Amino acid sequence: MTTLDPAIAARLKRNADGLVCAVAQARGTGEVLMVAWMNDEALALTLETEQATYFSRSRNTLWVKGETSGHTQQVREVRLDCDGDTILLVVDQQGAACHTGARTCFDEDRLR
Amino acid sequence: MTTLDPAIAARLKRNADGLVCAVAQARGTGEVLMVAWMNDEALALTLETEQATYFSRSRNTLWVKGETSGHTQQVREVRLDCDGDTILLVVDQQGAACHTGARTCFDEDRLR
Repeated sequence: MTTLDPAIAARLKRNADGLVCAVAQARGTGEVLMVAWMNDEALALTLETEQATYFSRSRNTLWVKGETSGHTQQVREVRLDCDGDTILLVVDQQGAACHTGARTCFDEDRLR
Repeated sequence: MTTLDPAIAARLKRNADGLVCAVAQARGTGEVLMVAWMNDEALALTLETEQATYFSRSRNTLWVKGETSGHTQQVREVRLDCDGDTILLVVDQQGAACHTGARTCFDEDRLR
């Protein structure tokens, strides 16, 4: 198990499930690609491997983005928000970020 | 009470607290400004008034962004993600988005 730097771990404000929210943004275009969740190990792996790694709430397991699809996210920046409960990843996205094949998870359903 | 369009309400996948995640992005620059939460009424008010309105989990109440600070968010686009649990708002941000006075909530703590 990869362990998160204690200095970072101390700054996280996790939800009841031990998770923080993670927003992935495309480097260059600035597109918001997707929102997912991380536990401490997912964040540690993301920082160490520079490949975006999340925690799947439905499958209850770690998940390297693009592991099966090839649509990986090379991580360029990792930022923590002011209250410690949200991570912003700036990434180089390979192919589609969304499992539907769309470029981002926000492309298909505009409410306004 | 402002009611959310039932066609939209039917597409939302709320968490156990009845909330969806909301990411605010600056129009033009593409900056990710902040992440907050919305219940159905917050989303309905956001769509109706075009002023970003969130639900405060700590205060357990609706909250019009900038109501006291003047740092309002004029909403230009509202998008729902592929699995219905996250909203993306594209906004014109007045002043600082972060309560610390920073332009965004992600300016101060870079982990990588």
